[in-house]
Amino acid sequence: MTPGRPVPPPLAQPAAPSAAAPSAAPSGGVLAAAYGATSPDSGLVPLTLARRAPGADDVEIAIEFCGLCHSDVHATRGEWGGKVWPLVPGHEIVGTVSRVGSAVVDFAVGDRVGVGCIVDSCRTCESCLDGLEQYCENGMTGTYGAVDRRNGDAVTQGGYSSSIVVDRRYVVRVPESLDPAAAAPLLCAGVTTFSPLRHFGVEEGDVVGVVGLGGLGHMAVKLARAMGAKVVVFTTSDAKVAAALELGADEVVLSRDEEAMAGANRSIDLIIDTVAAPHDLNPYFRTLRVDGALFQLGLPSEPMPPVNPGALIRRRIAYAGSLIGGIAETQEMLDFCAEHGVAAEIEMVRAGQLNEAYDRMVAGDVKYRFVLDASTLHAPAKEAHA
Amino acid sequence: MTPGRPVPPPLAQPAAPSAAAPSAAPSGGVLAAAYGATSPDSGLVPLTLARRAPGADDVEIAIEFCGLCHSDVHATRGEWGGKVWPLVPGHEIVGTVSRVGSAVVDFAVGDRVGVGCIVDSCRTCESCLDGLEQYCENGMTGTYGAVDRRNGDAVTQGGYSSSIVVDRRYVVRVPESLDPAAAAPLLCAGVTTFSPLRHFGVEEGDVVGVVGLGGLGHMAVKLARAMGAKVVVFTTSDAKVAAALELGADEVVLSRDEEAMAGANRSIDLIIDTVAAPHDLNPYFRTLRVDGALFQLGLPSEPMPPVNPGALIRRRIAYAGSLIGGIAETQEMLDFCAEHGVAAEIEMVRAGQLNEAYDRMVAGDVKYRFVLDASTLHAPAKEAHA
Repeated sequence: MTPGRPVPPPLAQPAAPSAAAPSAAPSGGVLAAAYGATSPDSGLVPLTLARRAPGADDVEIAIEFCGLCHSDVHATRGEWGGKVWPLVPGHEIVGTVSRVGSAVVDFAVGDRVGVGCIVDSCRTCESCLDGLEQYCENGMTGTYGAVDRRNGDAVTQGGYSSSIVVDRRYVVRVPESLDPAAAAPLLCAGVTTFSPLRHFGVEEGDVVGVVGLGGLGHMAVKLARAMGAKVVVFTTSDAKVAAALELGADEVVLSRDEEAMAGANRSIDLIIDTVAAPHDLNPYFRTLRVDGALFQLGLPSEPMPPVNPGALIRRRIAYAGSLIGGIAETQEMLDFCAEHGVAAEIEMVRAGQLNEAYDRMVAGDVKYRFVLDASTLHAPAKEAHA
Repeated sequence: MTPGRPVPPPLAQPAAPSAAAPSAAPSGGVLAAAYGATSPDSGLVPLTLARRAPGADDVEIAIEFCGLCHSDVHATRGEWGGKVWPLVPGHEIVGTVSRVGSAVVDFAVGDRVGVGCIVDSCRTCESCLDGLEQYCENGMTGTYGAVDRRNGDAVTQGGYSSSIVVDRRYVVRVPESLDPAAAAPLLCAGVTTFSPLRHFGVEEGDVVGVVGLGGLGHMAVKLARAMGAKVVVFTTSDAKVAAALELGADEVVLSRDEEAMAGANRSIDLIIDTVAAPHDLNPYFRTLRVDGALFQLGLPSEPMPPVNPGALIRRRIAYAGSLIGGIAETQEMLDFCAEHGVAAEIEMVRAGQLNEAYDRMVAGDVKYRFVLDASTLHAPAKEAHA
């Protein structure tokens, strides 16, 4: 569905690294070209990052592509608070292995690999032992803007960057048959929708509703279809009907049309709700069958309207949340996508277009995910290493 | 735990049947003594009901005991609207079989049986075929105040009555070892809490939280304990701590004590929430483990405070509802209670005390369920039948 797309040429004149950024890599490490924010108002500017030398369990990755997630916008604009500056976002990373640590046997130089939202976790709590690193009881380490407890409490920096170093346990393999650029958004948008579909146990013949048709929503449509489900897209906008059908939806319901919503009464097994603005869930609960569930994936910054418990009680409905997915599940999702020919619909951007891309994301003007071509970042001098 | 309790003697002078009530039973039927409301303001007054002659599949039951459920108060006071008067409430019915129809082979005269909230359903929809009659897609027929589609659209009348006639498919067997009076509340309060405990799959070693310690809550404590769970009761009231421990709770958390609530963080697998007044669920979500669930069983008449979706997302928590239980599940619950020596804690009332009992229920002054001794109802003349 997503053929290889033409990659724009690198900028003729790459911007110079910011003077504010670290200028020296630690011994054996590399200096990476990156784009990030130096303050909530800076927008994205060129930076140089010092990446650590790979430890025994580390994989150094030459980044080829990085998806642009709405979280990146919130984080770099300081809308989620508490960040340390500069901040290089990006947690939908695809690249090739450039070096491995001495204890790494499952990855070799040249392998195509991916990194999602998680680069570390405690590895000892029940969640980690269950392969649910995203729910680590001691707090997972996010790919950017998080304190990297196993690496000197450095703040992690993400994938808008020419390279990254990540413990092998948090690196996944990107199957050869996937277009690497279109695979990048799978690392967050893909697994975030795959995980609740799998957790609910979607199978052939189930009916899956999708609310919101952005980066996550369009992946939910494709993945649910690939699992054999009938897919119903709920949208507020007439303009999205054709797009939803084109993506593979079997049916589109205009959620502001009360008659259409009544017609969908008790017809859906599982709803994947990807809308991150406050919205009334009660009309959606009425479309669910007995033992149906609605998984909300987006986190609005304002309170949601109240839930009517009667809607839940009368059909034993569950209103649930779900956060990305675990590492093993991310690998399972990539393998599933390769098997079923599923990838994201993407629009490639060069580093110099990142700020414009953010503005378009905020305006909802993207079908359906921007992906940064990392070859358009400045390529800094590397320290010598064997 | 619930020894046989002394049954108060019948009233010396039973009240006369109301002139407004039907005065003649259909051929082969009986006139039953009952208490019910003739208007939202009438309170409960003596009435006579005509019960139909048992059809081929019917079981006629001489009622011994009927539990008083909070729903009965709402319905007879017109707080749920749309009722036809007079209305005889009661859906926690225990009695003995007095007659059976020609096609009934699974019940015999003299058997001790029970009837809960459901006396009919379509029997053909997916829910009915799955044994989930409470979620019948065509609407279950409630034990009182519902249109009885298979019986001439008569309005059903409940268990504050000397007899009832119910299709065998909606009659359950009350095991001999259960005290029949203390078994009556199992038919609603028991199965309403048993069903979500079972649906969630509670087992030895799980931690179950119970919010609210009334008729439903006290059953949740007993049933969860009998399933091998550790039970934590949440209460707003210091005064209920001792009572909760006495019922078998392992721990009691004062929900208004922020420190105590913080101490319960991420410690509970399943919460059974029985409170029917609006209350903030977000502090309870924080006490749940990853993949935990909160089942709300009570339906407040005012909106609940908004749910914070982040609380659901961060631990894949489900906020669900659940409605009573199916017929097969009701039988399973009664058998479970017999096996584990579980029954309700009850206070017996005579027919003449019903209005006073209602006032005490509204004031929360009952430990934990009132049960009507049906022998205190007026015993009317019966039509002759073979």
